[in-house]
Amino acid sequence: MGISKKKVTPHNTKKVTDMNSFVLKGNICFSKNPHEIQLYDNGYLVCIEGKCRGVFTSLPQEYCHLPLKDYNNNLIIPGLTDLHLHAPQFAFRGIGSDRELLDWLNTYTFPEEGKYRNPAYADKAYDIFVSELQRSATTRSVIFATIHREATMLLMDKLEASGLVTMVGKVNMDRNAPDYLTETTEESIRETRRWLSEAAGKYQRTKPIITPRFVPSCTDELMTALGEISVEYHLPVQSHLSENLSEIAWVKELVPSAETYGEAYEKFNLFGRDVPCVMAHCVHSPEAELELLKKNGVFIAHSPDSNTNLSSGIAPVNKYIQQGLKVGLASDVAGGADVNMLRMMAEAIRASHLRWRLIDSGLPALTFANVFYLATKGGGEFFGKVGSFEPEYEFDAIIIDDSSLATPRELSLTERMERLPYLADSRHIRAKYVSGQQLF
Amino acid sequence: MGISKKKVTPHNTKKVTDMNSFVLKGNICFSKNPHEIQLYDNGYLVCIEGKCRGVFTSLPQEYCHLPLKDYNNNLIIPGLTDLHLHAPQFAFRGIGSDRELLDWLNTYTFPEEGKYRNPAYADKAYDIFVSELQRSATTRSVIFATIHREATMLLMDKLEASGLVTMVGKVNMDRNAPDYLTETTEESIRETRRWLSEAAGKYQRTKPIITPRFVPSCTDELMTALGEISVEYHLPVQSHLSENLSEIAWVKELVPSAETYGEAYEKFNLFGRDVPCVMAHCVHSPEAELELLKKNGVFIAHSPDSNTNLSSGIAPVNKYIQQGLKVGLASDVAGGADVNMLRMMAEAIRASHLRWRLIDSGLPALTFANVFYLATKGGGEFFGKVGSFEPEYEFDAIIIDDSSLATPRELSLTERMERLPYLADSRHIRAKYVSGQQLF
Repeated sequence: MGISKKKVTPHNTKKVTDMNSFVLKGNICFSKNPHEIQLYDNGYLVCIEGKCRGVFTSLPQEYCHLPLKDYNNNLIIPGLTDLHLHAPQFAFRGIGSDRELLDWLNTYTFPEEGKYRNPAYADKAYDIFVSELQRSATTRSVIFATIHREATMLLMDKLEASGLVTMVGKVNMDRNAPDYLTETTEESIRETRRWLSEAAGKYQRTKPIITPRFVPSCTDELMTALGEISVEYHLPVQSHLSENLSEIAWVKELVPSAETYGEAYEKFNLFGRDVPCVMAHCVHSPEAELELLKKNGVFIAHSPDSNTNLSSGIAPVNKYIQQGLKVGLASDVAGGADVNMLRMMAEAIRASHLRWRLIDSGLPALTFANVFYLATKGGGEFFGKVGSFEPEYEFDAIIIDDSSLATPRELSLTERMERLPYLADSRHIRAKYVSGQQLF
Repeated sequence: MGISKKKVTPHNTKKVTDMNSFVLKGNICFSKNPHEIQLYDNGYLVCIEGKCRGVFTSLPQEYCHLPLKDYNNNLIIPGLTDLHLHAPQFAFRGIGSDRELLDWLNTYTFPEEGKYRNPAYADKAYDIFVSELQRSATTRSVIFATIHREATMLLMDKLEASGLVTMVGKVNMDRNAPDYLTETTEESIRETRRWLSEAAGKYQRTKPIITPRFVPSCTDELMTALGEISVEYHLPVQSHLSENLSEIAWVKELVPSAETYGEAYEKFNLFGRDVPCVMAHCVHSPEAELELLKKNGVFIAHSPDSNTNLSSGIAPVNKYIQQGLKVGLASDVAGGADVNMLRMMAEAIRASHLRWRLIDSGLPALTFANVFYLATKGGGEFFGKVGSFEPEYEFDAIIIDDSSLATPRELSLTERMERLPYLADSRHIRAKYVSGQQLF
């Protein structure tokens, strides 16, 4: 599916010949804010050197010399960001969600993650995972690996080769897990530093992220060291926060000095402020924790599929949007059963309907515009200017061919967009671009 | 994909040569009750003249002469029954679930259903719908058409040709809808009788079912006539019950003499007892209504996808199972966004998790065994001995090839079954049999 070149006419004075400069034509949809979507029937989306230049109803003269790919009646939207998922858990997606979090970790997750000590297993498993992620609507993702350095490097190698842009964490765990999945504190710190030194300068698109699994998995000593490493290397941080009621009670026991779960990260310098930080879930965050999230600019990875599967509850995401918190969407595989981020938009809407009905009719349910923003610009912001087609944004785009979703109706562009979360998956992704590079 | 014949050995005395007698080999799973599943690794499933004879770990001598089809490592399960869906709404699946029921009906549903006055539109729309249903995991379904006799006959013709077994209702509506979708009482009765006379004796697999849309759509006079017609022709009845709080309040106003919504059907002879009856939803049924449902043997069509999308709530299905009510699963397209009944099993489990967390931790969430029963034998019972592989059940089976759901793990048969609701769709249905006839 090459890009057909248009003739360069003699009067083009500013010629951009870079391979990553081109024009896509099609039905374009993107967000500038959480409340409305921008729609262009048969619009032109201009990419200059891997960055968006803008969307136009007719192509400005200055871009007419660029190669143009006409996607005709297809939909063109920003690539989606999956702010939180566990690569090793992809192996058991769809299995075991008859448990709550802590039971599920012990019964399904830890035994599976233990297998990644074996590089041959990791190689096989991560081939499958990366291939599925590459075919999906996701262009960027923030990913947990396991405690194993070698397997984590394997995962990073494969992700780098996929063309996706990701942050990947070697997980740290020095307590409260089975022996086969527990490091000594010293080992955890040493392996983390060794991993960072091996990864340094090796990748263009794949960045390490500091990854204490969650408070119950890490001693104060380890947390202290990870906070120091994050500052020293200026590396972002990811972890879990206020997902499940039993987990929250346990954290309170483990770190009694912390007023909230969030503070149990903050006291170790692992809660934003100086480096980017993303916390998965925030289903049950009290106001004080929300204030800290906001003050420190911490991102929330809303994971509605997982929060339903593991009976965690329903996060009041619309409140977070209203309060100006930074929020994105996440699959949380394998709490979530699928990497399909289109589906996660539907799950976010659906969960918010039940929250409105069952918990608080004062908080409106999420709209399509809300969740489209979360899956694009909301989560994309964790990677910088990502997730929109506004000028200077990274040119991440997916092309969706929805013609197989047959209907006798003439659908408006809004209606075609609105049904994607409920009906579309990797079958419908016709092409994908990341920073102006076409992956397929 | 023909059935390979095994040699008939001379000592077979009871030879069955009927085309609908054969053996399938594969990994077989079915339910006898709501609490446990029956699993056979590499089992034999025997079909004699369109009916199950049984499942065997090794093939009894008396069936060795039958043609045998080896599905190797594929999964073989009973065909699924979709107890409630609206064929004309398939056209706008995935669109408009930002509304609650009554608003959604007026904004999306009624305008779409109005189009089926035009047989050309109905022809096109129902071609799409029937083709998708035929490819899905569904083998039997109970279906709403629209008020239009001609379009309803078109739908029945297409369903008959598909090989699926269905009950289809010309909808009755003589009040509280736009003019273009409202019949006079007389017209509604006349058209219903004419439809029944046209359908009489025309189909093998497609049966008419009396279909008052819901209490708000039908005057007492029309309800009285429909109850009489149902008894006269001994025809089953389908409608909606206790789906949405505003709807329930409205019914109370419309039929103040009825203690419960259910009684507003019962008083017109449209609530089971003498003929089979299925009521969709029962999200908010009070105890008195549940007692009436039980006493009259009325089936509940649990529609978790729809109940979430339209913010209706979460039905306490596990309670209904415990109370011995008759319950099956339904997509309720287009309240539900898809005809994929495998997915509806996941939605039932998922909704029950949230109900457990948010409403009543005293009622356990649904298990895979529970929902597999609902989707097979639970709903199948509306069609008679349907939805199991026990002897004398109709031979409805689907063959699922899950090999594309890649994983590095060795999955047990239980695990393979358990992930189907979360991951499988029509792509994975390799073959389908209805009453012993292979559809594809």
